[in-house]
Amino acid sequence: MRGVIMHAPGDVRVEEREDPKIIEPTDAIIRVAAACICGSDLWPYRGIEKLEGPTPMGHEYVGVVEEIGPEVKSVKVGDFVVGSFFASDNTCEICRAGYQSRCVHNVVMGTIGTQAERARIPLADGTLVATPNPPTTEEIRSLLAASDVLGTGWFAAVAAESGPGKTVAVVGDGAVGLLGVLAAKRLGADRIIAMSRHADRQALARKFGATDIVTERGDAGVAKIKELTDGLGAHSVIEAVGTQESMMQAIHSTRPGGHVGYVGVAYEVELNGLDLFFSGVHLHGGPAPVRRFLPELVDLIMSGEINPGEVFDLTLPLDQAADGYQAMDERRSIKTLLLP
Amino acid sequence: MRGVIMHAPGDVRVEEREDPKIIEPTDAIIRVAAACICGSDLWPYRGIEKLEGPTPMGHEYVGVVEEIGPEVKSVKVGDFVVGSFFASDNTCEICRAGYQSRCVHNVVMGTIGTQAERARIPLADGTLVATPNPPTTEEIRSLLAASDVLGTGWFAAVAAESGPGKTVAVVGDGAVGLLGVLAAKRLGADRIIAMSRHADRQALARKFGATDIVTERGDAGVAKIKELTDGLGAHSVIEAVGTQESMMQAIHSTRPGGHVGYVGVAYEVELNGLDLFFSGVHLHGGPAPVRRFLPELVDLIMSGEINPGEVFDLTLPLDQAADGYQAMDERRSIKTLLLP
Repeated sequence: MRGVIMHAPGDVRVEEREDPKIIEPTDAIIRVAAACICGSDLWPYRGIEKLEGPTPMGHEYVGVVEEIGPEVKSVKVGDFVVGSFFASDNTCEICRAGYQSRCVHNVVMGTIGTQAERARIPLADGTLVATPNPPTTEEIRSLLAASDVLGTGWFAAVAAESGPGKTVAVVGDGAVGLLGVLAAKRLGADRIIAMSRHADRQALARKFGATDIVTERGDAGVAKIKELTDGLGAHSVIEAVGTQESMMQAIHSTRPGGHVGYVGVAYEVELNGLDLFFSGVHLHGGPAPVRRFLPELVDLIMSGEINPGEVFDLTLPLDQAADGYQAMDERRSIKTLLLP
Repeated sequence: MRGVIMHAPGDVRVEEREDPKIIEPTDAIIRVAAACICGSDLWPYRGIEKLEGPTPMGHEYVGVVEEIGPEVKSVKVGDFVVGSFFASDNTCEICRAGYQSRCVHNVVMGTIGTQAERARIPLADGTLVATPNPPTTEEIRSLLAASDVLGTGWFAAVAAESGPGKTVAVVGDGAVGLLGVLAAKRLGADRIIAMSRHADRQALARKFGATDIVTERGDAGVAKIKELTDGLGAHSVIEAVGTQESMMQAIHSTRPGGHVGYVGVAYEVELNGLDLFFSGVHLHGGPAPVRRFLPELVDLIMSGEINPGEVFDLTLPLDQAADGYQAMDERRSIKTLLLP
C-alpha cells in the first residue's frame, strides 16, 4: 500500500509500505477513507522533535473495517469507524474514569502511521466507534475532525469547565483552538473570546460561536481579556498552542479560581511555581482522551448539529502529502485533509 | 501593646507596638486570645524571603471583638471570632465563587501582624466568623487551627477532590499536611496515605485518619504510592510542603486524570511543561480561601466533631515567641501556639 514516510525534517515522501496484518486477536484492519496532517506532525517536520530514522506518519483516521481479529466484538467488517490517536481498551480503571489516552494498555497510533491506504487498529473494541450509517463526504470530513482536533478542542473546553454563565477565552487559532470555540459554544458558554490575528481564522471562529475577537498577544492579550471581564479575567481559558507565551497568556487571562484547559503539547514550557501558586487557577490538560467524547461527537455530526469538518481548508490526494505538510508549516492551511 | 517583630533572619523580638485603631469604617479591633507561628513565617526567619526592615509578624488569630467601625454589621463587641490570613469583603464576584483569598479588596493579614495583644481586622463583616458561644480553652486551640492550617489543609483536600471511593496521598507532615489528613477523612476518603518519617507526626496522622504511612520520599515515595495503588497512583494528592521535590512527588504520585491540591508556598519550584502535560493530572492550589470553609469548620469544632487543635504541641506566652520560632525552625515543634 501507499503511505507517508518522514525521512528528515522537511522531507516527507509517499512510498510503498507493507500492508498491515492482524497481529493481536483484538486488532482490526481499516481501509482509510480520509486522514490528515496534525499540528503535532510539524514538530518533527521542523526538527524540534527528533526522528529516529524514516517514520510512518499520521494518527488521525476514519475508514471502513476490512478485517477483524477473532476477539473483536463491537465492530464488524464493513462498518464505517472513527478512532483516535491512542488505542485504548476502554475497560481499565483509567479508561473508565474517562482518561482513555492514558489507558494502561494504550498504543500510540503515531507509531502505526495512518496517513496511508490501510491501517492496523489495536484494541479495536475499545478504540473504534462505528457510525449508525455510511457517512456522506461532508460527514467524513467532520468525523475525521472528531478523530483528533475536535476531540482535543472538546476536551480542552471541558477541562476549562466551559458552560452556561461562563466567559471562555481561547488562546490559539489553529484547528484545535477553533474547534475549542465550537465546543465551548455547544457546552453553553455565554461569551467566547477567540484570540486570533488572521482574518480567515477569525471568520471561522465567529462561525463556530466566538462572540469577541482579541488580536493582542502575550501581556497585551491578557490586559485585553481583563478589560473585557471587569478586570477579573475569564472563567475558562483554552490553551491550544503549547509555547511558553501561550501558556502564560492562558494562565494570566484566567480569574482566580478559574480553569485553564491546556492541550497544546507543552514543549519548552517552564511554569514558575510561585506564579502558578498565586494565580489560583485550576490547570488541567494533556493528551486528550478523545475516546471519552467520540460517541457523543459522532452523534452530533451524524445528526447534522455540528460541522467541524469546516476546519479542513485544503484537501489533497495522499500522494501530494508533502505539499500539505508545506502548506501547514507555512500556515497557508489551517488543516489539510489527505485522501488515499 | 506587646507584639512580635522580626528584625532580621533569626532575630525575633517581642516589643511594644502602637495599639491598633479603627481606620476604615469596616474595621474591627480584636483582643487576640491566641495566635501562632506559621510554617510560612519561617521563610523570612531562614532568610529565604527578604525582609524590608523590622516587620510585625503573624496572620493567624482568634479573639474577642473590642471595637467595631460604624459600618460593621455582622459581628458585635464581645463576640468571639475567627478570621483568616486574608481579609476579604466576601461579596465580590471572586469571593462569591469561593476564592476569598483573592477577593478584589483583599488585605494580607501578614502586613498587620497578629502575634500581638490586639489586632485591627479590615473588612470585618466579610472576614470574621463569630462562634455561637464563648469557646473553651481546647476549642480556642482548634479555632486557631481553623484560622490557617486547618483551613489550608481542608482547601488542599477539596482541591484534590478527596471523597468517597478515593485514595488520598498527603505529601508533607507539617500541621497543614496533618490537617489535610483530617480533612480527607471528614470528606469521606476510603484510604489516606500519609508520607512521613517522624514517629510523632505519623502517630498524629493515624489519629486524624491516615490508613497507611509511607516513609520513602522523592522517586522512592512515588514508587511506593504506585505499589499501594495497583500501579496507577493515588486519585488525590495533597501537596503541603512547597519544594521542587515535594511538588514532583505529588504530581508523579497522582494517576492520570487524578487531582493534586497544592498549598505549600511554591518558592523555587519550576514545573516542566511536557512532564506536567503527560502526567494528565488536575492541578489546583494557591493561597487557601479559608473563609469559604470557616463557617463549617467552626460548626465542626464547636460541636466537638473535630479537634484540630491537637497539632499545637508547644504553647508559649507571647513574650517567648523567639523560642517558638526556634523550636519550629528546628522541627522540635509541629506548630507553636502563642498566648498574649
